[in-house]
Formats: sequence, structure tokens, C-alpha cells
Amino acid sequence: MGQWPDRRILDLLGIELPILQAPMSGFSTVEMAVAVSQAGGLGALACAQLSVSQAEDELISFRQSTNRPINLNFFCHRALPANPVAMAAWRKRLRGYFDELGLDPDAEPLAASRLPFDEAYCALVERHRPEIVSFHFGLPQAGLLARVKATGARVLSSATTVAEAVWLEEQGVDAVIAMGAEAGGHRGSFLAQDMNAQPGTFALVPQVADAVRVPVIAAGGIADARGVVAALALGASAVQVGTAFLFCPEAKISDVHRRALDTAADDNTQITNVLTGRPARGLTNRLMREVGPISSLAPAFPTAAGPLAPLKAKAEAAGFGNFSSLWAGQSARLAPHLPAAELTRRMASEALDRLSA
Amino acid sequence: MGQWPDRRILDLLGIELPILQAPMSGFSTVEMAVAVSQAGGLGALACAQLSVSQAEDELISFRQSTNRPINLNFFCHRALPANPVAMAAWRKRLRGYFDELGLDPDAEPLAASRLPFDEAYCALVERHRPEIVSFHFGLPQAGLLARVKATGARVLSSATTVAEAVWLEEQGVDAVIAMGAEAGGHRGSFLAQDMNAQPGTFALVPQVADAVRVPVIAAGGIADARGVVAALALGASAVQVGTAFLFCPEAKISDVHRRALDTAADDNTQITNVLTGRPARGLTNRLMREVGPISSLAPAFPTAAGPLAPLKAKAEAAGFGNFSSLWAGQSARLAPHLPAAELTRRMASEALDRLSA
Repeated sequence: MGQWPDRRILDLLGIELPILQAPMSGFSTVEMAVAVSQAGGLGALACAQLSVSQAEDELISFRQSTNRPINLNFFCHRALPANPVAMAAWRKRLRGYFDELGLDPDAEPLAASRLPFDEAYCALVERHRPEIVSFHFGLPQAGLLARVKATGARVLSSATTVAEAVWLEEQGVDAVIAMGAEAGGHRGSFLAQDMNAQPGTFALVPQVADAVRVPVIAAGGIADARGVVAALALGASAVQVGTAFLFCPEAKISDVHRRALDTAADDNTQITNVLTGRPARGLTNRLMREVGPISSLAPAFPTAAGPLAPLKAKAEAAGFGNFSSLWAGQSARLAPHLPAAELTRRMASEALDRLSA
Repeated sequence: MGQWPDRRILDLLGIELPILQAPMSGFSTVEMAVAVSQAGGLGALACAQLSVSQAEDELISFRQSTNRPINLNFFCHRALPANPVAMAAWRKRLRGYFDELGLDPDAEPLAASRLPFDEAYCALVERHRPEIVSFHFGLPQAGLLARVKATGARVLSSATTVAEAVWLEEQGVDAVIAMGAEAGGHRGSFLAQDMNAQPGTFALVPQVADAVRVPVIAAGGIADARGVVAALALGASAVQVGTAFLFCPEAKISDVHRRALDTAADDNTQITNVLTGRPARGLTNRLMREVGPISSLAPAFPTAAGPLAPLKAKAEAAGFGNFSSLWAGQSARLAPHLPAAELTRRMASEALDRLSA
């Protein structure tokens, strides 16, 4: 194999291939992370829907399988106090769907289960010292961040605009993930409010590279070797790939989501806030069409998801994703449908072939 | 200089450098087109706001200046019959602005002046035989298209989705311009309705390249050599550059627009339909914020622009772009502010340097 033209991320993270598996809360698995890290990329464990003990189990399992580096990922939204007025308005908006599906609209909804990084997760990081810790939705408060950095972990976070990238650099991240509008799943946005103004990967990456000194990891729309080469050309030192890993056998994914992914095209995803309360890109479904894609009625993340849970469960049991988070980026169609290790190696080797051609 | 890895567009269009100046109706000029074509790229004359005799004058002027190829560009929207109900609702929505600016809201608005390709423009093409004819918003009806092709002109049109690219290829275009969501000005969309689902350049270009056999020209977010190299890596054979040419001295651009462009960032443009009735990307201004960015009240293209004309004129006279079409793409910030010939040559030579590095 040839040489990578930019070794900054490789040296910073201690990896061989400039390919990071995106942490995908609820979909990525320990098996996926192990496969990617053993292949020479960087695997990730997404902790947002894991308790501390579940996250610890996954990390221990990873360590038993490989001595390669791991990226432990956390959400760092601010958990807001309950807002009964907003929740009542949301449940009222959804009431027709409960009636249609024969569900009790007055049953108390489950609390949504995405937890922000906190003292307990921080203690987990201190105990196990993952080589890389990444955050989504900005960064945790300064005291917690300082403790993470004191463990020696390299810290990453996502920027969806140049302003967010500059802010992250000022707070001391070791690299910025420039997440273009094409990306699937939750936008990393934390300063940007207006989803209509989110820049695409092609515009974002070079402008972030011009604005910060830390290395840049490109994300959004990268699902094959062409994307790796293009991202490097735009100024990135590495790429983060999400959706393409959803097609791996190591992904934990519902039948409904998998079938929806098989219909993915360049133009059938949207950024929506109606599934969780925060903007995320997924395959357009009935809830997005009828209530969203963006609605001011969706209560704060993650509480919007609570009342949707019974609708989602009943619809999925009947084979429909009408109320499901069918996360996907705009390049799902390019994904090669390979096991995670092979996907990682092939993207890298084909990219190197193209770079040396 | 080194060699371009893909000569398909160079050979098809008879040019030396794979850089097309985007036709920008109202902003590009004969001087710009001459400079780009003489530099080895492909200059364009945008005819949508020119009468047949004005277009003919520009073409004659181009031919007197250079014997290089020219791209004559036309809009091909369907001109709809007047819709007095929709227009009355639009004028009612704008009434407060007329009051605020001390303008008579009941004065009869001027008709908007963007004309679709028709018999008379087609006769112009037959008389002058431009080497390249390009269309925006799809293609003209089959009889006119056949006459254009019979002149020997190479025909181009823009696709904003894979489905549009496939349709254009089926109708016989010689190359497809894959126009990602980052692009400034009017979206080329003609099948796609939902602007929330428009793919970014990074996702669109490889998926179009996989779907069609004709060569692909990438557009959207390309404003420097990094973008040229990245577009070629994604599968394009050439690039079309718009916004970067707005900073050239050859651009015909209002003071208000020029000052707005100086504030352009990655995250302060939006796709809006309130300025003309068709979706277009521009710097966010007051009308977009308060009435749009997308409004079902905006009447059909181009008639929405009619009632805005007096508001635009009065606001611009006071130095404000509140009602102006401040078209810009998401990579305006990357533009190098050079004369058009130098911009063309520098993007090409720096791209070749990067390709051979």
C-alpha cells in the first residue's frame, strides 16, 4: 500500500487508516467497533443509550478483543427539566395516530433514554482510559472536560458550521469533525439553530480547514473510496463514516430500518426534529411528512421520542416505519454492503490506489 | 502543466481546462465569458433576462473578441398564464412593506422579465451556432431541442437529483451538470419538488456518475482548486463555478449585492422561493426571514419578482438588500477575488499541481 498524504489524524489517534466508524447510538455494536479498530481504522462505542454499567461492559468486551484504540462517544446536550405544557401539546398533536392504531393516548409515556455525559460517565472514562473520547452536541461543562483531558484521552467533537469548529478549537479539542449536511442521524449542531442554513460537506470541510489549526475529520456523504479521496482533497486529514456501516452484518438494526435503507436514494432523506426533538437526517417517513420535517411542537431532546414509542412499536410490528427513526445519510446508496473490517480496509486501499494513480 | 486525468468534457466541449463559468443571469457579462473562454475554460452568456436582440448583440460581441467556444444558456420554465388570485394574495402579503417604505401598494407591478427558450431564441441559435447550448429547469419541448441539436451544439442541463440526471440523459443531453445543494442562485430542479431533500454536491456527484453514461460536470460549493480536485475524485469530468466569478471585476453586480457577498459565510445562505417564485440560494435577507425562506404564497416563477421590484429599488437606494436577490453559494468565502481569466487559470493550475503531487 502507498502512503497517506496527511498523517496528522493517524499520528494523533494512533491508527493506521484515516477512517473512523461513526458512533451510532442504538445501531453500532462492540463487534463493529472491534472489527474497525482491528482493521486499522477507529471503532467507536456510542454510549448515549447505554447506562454506565452497560457502557462499561461494552468497553471491557472491546478491550478483551483487541488492544487497538477505541473512541468512547457521549451526547452532551443539557438535560432540561420536564415541560408538561410542551409535552401535552405534543401528545395532543399525536393523538390522532394513537386513535388510528388503537392505542391509549392517555397512557403515561416512557421517559426517553438518551443521557448526557455526567459525573458517572466521567468516572467511567477515568477508570478505563479510552484513547479517544468524542462528544456530540458540543462539549460537556469545563470541569468534566478537564477531567477527560487529564486522562490523556484525545478529545473530538462535531461542528456543523465554521463557527462551531472555531468554538470547539477554543475549548481545546484535539481535532474537529466537520459534519456536512449530508450526514445521517443527529446533527452535531450546538450553536447553529437554522437547519435551512447548514452547509454541505463540500462547502464545510475546506472552510473549517481554513479556520482551525487542529486537524479536520470530514463527515457526511462519505460511503466509498471516492469520498475518502475527495475529503482529503478538500483539506480533511481523515473521514468519519456512518451510514455505510449500517449495512454491515455487525449493525444492530431493525427489519423495518433495514428495508427502508434498501430504498435509500440521494433525494429521500430529510433533516427532521419530530422523532427526538433534535434535528437528525433520516429517510422520509409518514411522521416527518405529516408533522415535520421541522415542527415547533416537538418538545426538547430527547423527550419528543417518549410519546412516539408505542406508535413506533405497534407500527414496526406491522412492518411499517411510520414513526421510526430511519436514520440515513444522503450517500446510503453508495455503501458497498460488506462486513465492517472489509469495508474499512477496502475504502482505505481503494483510496490509496486512487491517490497514487 | 500536467495532464488532466479525465478528458471527456475537454474533448466534448473543445476546451483546455475543465472549468465552466456558470451562466448567471443578470450578473455575468460578455467580458467575463470572453475572459474565461480565452483562458481555456468555457465562458457562458446567460440569456434569461436578455431579449433576442440583446442576446444576439452579446454573442456577436463574444465572437468579435475570441474564436473560442461559447455556452449560450437559456431558462426553460413553462411560462404560465397570469394568475390574478395568486398575485393578489402575494401583493397583500407584501402590503406592509409598501406602507413601511412609503410606496403605493396599488400601483400596477411591472411584469417580471425572465423568458423561457422559445421559437425566437431557437432561431438565434440556428443563426449563430454556439458550440454549447445549456438549459436550466430541465429542457425545452422536444421540437425545439431537436432543432438545437441539429445545429451541432453540445447540449447541457442541470440535475439536482439522480432522477433528474437520468431523465436528462434519456432526452439526449451530451453531459449532465450535477448541481449540489451548496450552489448559489436558482436550483436547476425540474422534477424535484422538496427543497429539504436536495442532496449536497458530495452525495450527488458520485451517485449521478454511477447512474448515467454521459460525462458529469460538478457544481455547487466549488470555488478553489481543492474543490476542483475533490469534484474529479467524486467522478466528475469538469466543474462549473458560479459564485466565485461574482467577485471578478467583470461581474455586473450591485453595490448592495457586493457588500452582502463580503459577509458571506458557510452558514448564512438559504434556499428561498420568495424572491422569484422558484427556489434559489442566496444570502439570508429580511424578506427571506420574514416571508420565507419557502412560502406557498410566492406565485409562479418569475412573477413573484414583479411586485418586489419597487421595494427592491427603494431599499437598494438606501443601501439595503432587504428585498434583493443576493444570490450566493455556500463556498463564497473561498473565492480568491481575481479577474475571471486569472481565476480560471489559477484554479486549473493549482488543481493540476495537487493532482500530480
